[in-house]
Amino acid sequence: MNVCYAQSGGVTAVINASAAAVADAVRGEKRLGKLYAARNGILGVLREELIETWRAPQQIWRQLRHTPGGAFGSCRVKLPPHTDAPQTYARLFAVFRAHDIGAFLYNGGNDSADTALKIMRAARAVNAPLAVAAIPKTIDNDLAQTDASPGFGSAAKYIAVTVAETTLDLAAMAETSTKVFILEVMGRHAGWLAAAGGLAAKDGARHLIVFPEIPFSRARFIAAVKKKVCAGGYVVVVASEGARDEGGRFLSAGGSDAFAHRQLGGVAPLLAEMIRADAGLKCHWAVADYAQRSARHLASLADLRHTRALAAAAVGYAAAGKSGLMPVLRRLPNVNNANNAAVKWEVKAAPLSKIANKERKMPRGFISRDGFFITARCRRYLSPLIKGEESPPYGGDGLPIYARPQWQLAKKRLPGYK
Amino acid sequence: MNVCYAQSGGVTAVINASAAAVADAVRGEKRLGKLYAARNGILGVLREELIETWRAPQQIWRQLRHTPGGAFGSCRVKLPPHTDAPQTYARLFAVFRAHDIGAFLYNGGNDSADTALKIMRAARAVNAPLAVAAIPKTIDNDLAQTDASPGFGSAAKYIAVTVAETTLDLAAMAETSTKVFILEVMGRHAGWLAAAGGLAAKDGARHLIVFPEIPFSRARFIAAVKKKVCAGGYVVVVASEGARDEGGRFLSAGGSDAFAHRQLGGVAPLLAEMIRADAGLKCHWAVADYAQRSARHLASLADLRHTRALAAAAVGYAAAGKSGLMPVLRRLPNVNNANNAAVKWEVKAAPLSKIANKERKMPRGFISRDGFFITARCRRYLSPLIKGEESPPYGGDGLPIYARPQWQLAKKRLPGYK
Repeated sequence: MNVCYAQSGGVTAVINASAAAVADAVRGEKRLGKLYAARNGILGVLREELIETWRAPQQIWRQLRHTPGGAFGSCRVKLPPHTDAPQTYARLFAVFRAHDIGAFLYNGGNDSADTALKIMRAARAVNAPLAVAAIPKTIDNDLAQTDASPGFGSAAKYIAVTVAETTLDLAAMAETSTKVFILEVMGRHAGWLAAAGGLAAKDGARHLIVFPEIPFSRARFIAAVKKKVCAGGYVVVVASEGARDEGGRFLSAGGSDAFAHRQLGGVAPLLAEMIRADAGLKCHWAVADYAQRSARHLASLADLRHTRALAAAAVGYAAAGKSGLMPVLRRLPNVNNANNAAVKWEVKAAPLSKIANKERKMPRGFISRDGFFITARCRRYLSPLIKGEESPPYGGDGLPIYARPQWQLAKKRLPGYK
Repeated sequence: MNVCYAQSGGVTAVINASAAAVADAVRGEKRLGKLYAARNGILGVLREELIETWRAPQQIWRQLRHTPGGAFGSCRVKLPPHTDAPQTYARLFAVFRAHDIGAFLYNGGNDSADTALKIMRAARAVNAPLAVAAIPKTIDNDLAQTDASPGFGSAAKYIAVTVAETTLDLAAMAETSTKVFILEVMGRHAGWLAAAGGLAAKDGARHLIVFPEIPFSRARFIAAVKKKVCAGGYVVVVASEGARDEGGRFLSAGGSDAFAHRQLGGVAPLLAEMIRADAGLKCHWAVADYAQRSARHLASLADLRHTRALAAAAVGYAAAGKSGLMPVLRRLPNVNNANNAAVKWEVKAAPLSKIANKERKMPRGFISRDGFFITARCRRYLSPLIKGEESPPYGGDGLPIYARPQWQLAKKRLPGYK
């Protein structure tokens, strides 16, 4: 029985580490055959574009452990329910059957868990011999059931380091020039990435976080900026792209994607303009965008360890023929209440039905009373997720050595799709 | 004879490495006494806010070698010519005299070289016993007379790595989602930082650089974007904040600073809007802003070595009583024409009059004929500047350990200023 793996949704600095761990685990598992990878997520299955991963040299697999982006291509494609489009699912099962694929591992976030769940239900409905598991991935950290999601810790580390570094820059300039620096980060509906900016500061004296969970009031925001600049000379603002006004509307919104999520971006220049207009302060602003989710050069070792453990667990479910699960992280209680005890996690199985389309937001207790910083509880939660470093190797050209795989597609055994 | 050091203009990932190297060199030089550092550049001299650097613990100096930002504070302040404001210069010399300061080292770019030059000329005019030297610093790499400027190599490395990483991200998403990613970088009038993005790609097949040196044509830009997306599926655009239209006007301009430079930013969203409107392609965009000049976590070792050598040379000029100089880098000819020979540099002295207020732009021969990429010559120039890594140490919290000095100011010996 062969296995098919695919990547879905926004890629991350560590999703290829998931793929490499899947390949390792499949090789080590006698009950499983070969590992195919679909090109561009579920689309690759529909199109019968299946990569014969075992043909890639070992060096490529070693490099993929530390290569950002999605080496097999990703997609933002939503499947209709199988009752509406039975022919779509029949095609999926035909492709799997044609290549003796008995397990499908879908590496993504809550939309991808939805896809995996639909495929599992369709397989049960038509008695297709397919085990489906999701492997968690999202920098947004908004997946239900899990303590954290692969990709988040690394993005959070990148944001925390960037805030620490840009704060030092601003501190040097503030006397005669710029008083406010704004960093816009991702996180459509959940403020986890914005919260990570708070790890760069001991307290909120010179930092201010704009969370999507807290309705944005221009008057309160400007008052907070002025107060901090008055007291400390400058302020660094970490703003979520998902910030919304008191009517629930995004402060800044562009087009929309296949899931009818609005494509966001542009909160930072908007806040900068508000600050100039209402407070007369000079601002600089940055937008991290893809940089925050592809910065493998600054990955979190904790995140990488989670990534590997979760991928291996998903392969275990496939080998055991279990379907409809996603491996998740549970944080173990600090039994001795030791102050500096390293946080530990265990991997558990959660049903896809509890994950698909759910969004985990920041609890109110993680956000300070004034709504503009993180609490000590939030820091205790976040801090272990960015610990440790694992630098990629660098080449003589001064750049990290990232994999550039030339994949070989399996010969098609079915007629073309669409 | 004591020495006064100060930081000026936009700070960088390595300007504190300059400061630490100055401190080391002053300690090792018998002809020199103690090292003062002015707070916030030349302003600190005028205000007699002088830091007694020797009171800081050794650990702070070790940490400053790898701490970004400007640890003494910087400023954007332009001095009037001494014939217009003799009292300003009289104040400077009074402060220097009151603390037995016989040498002033100003660490900055071409504006700071202008300040240093004015002080040197004023000192000569009134026979004040002061040697003045500039220590080069600018991420823009636009200083005349030198092969490269401290700060540039590290910013260039950050940009090259960010382009490499975000390109992998975009490549994974392009099939069903985003086709264009735009990264906006600094460089007011010179495209050196934008050019660094080209180091992430073998050729311009999937990359496109918008230089300030090449007048921007919307039609040609959109045509180039479409062509690359058609051929390769996606394109990464590296855009200089200083991009100008065919009439020489900045594409995007905000306010202006003390030097009447316009504060830029916002080219990326502007290009994204053009691409959406004219080509109907989905874009993501990022703006690096302060992150590119403070990213010490990704500094270039070549840049750090230059930084240290140039700072030490400037202290040497001061010890020898030479005034009006800036140490610069000369690239040594590759005598054997060996293909993989490491590039070497020597440090030479250049007169401030040849540096002050000059701006070195990209030569046309460094830009491809179509105006949208770098040439092989440019790559040969840039590549050695981003070579090598020197990671800062990380703490148990997952963040780099950066210095947080608590400076002690010298007791004032003069009446207050202004």
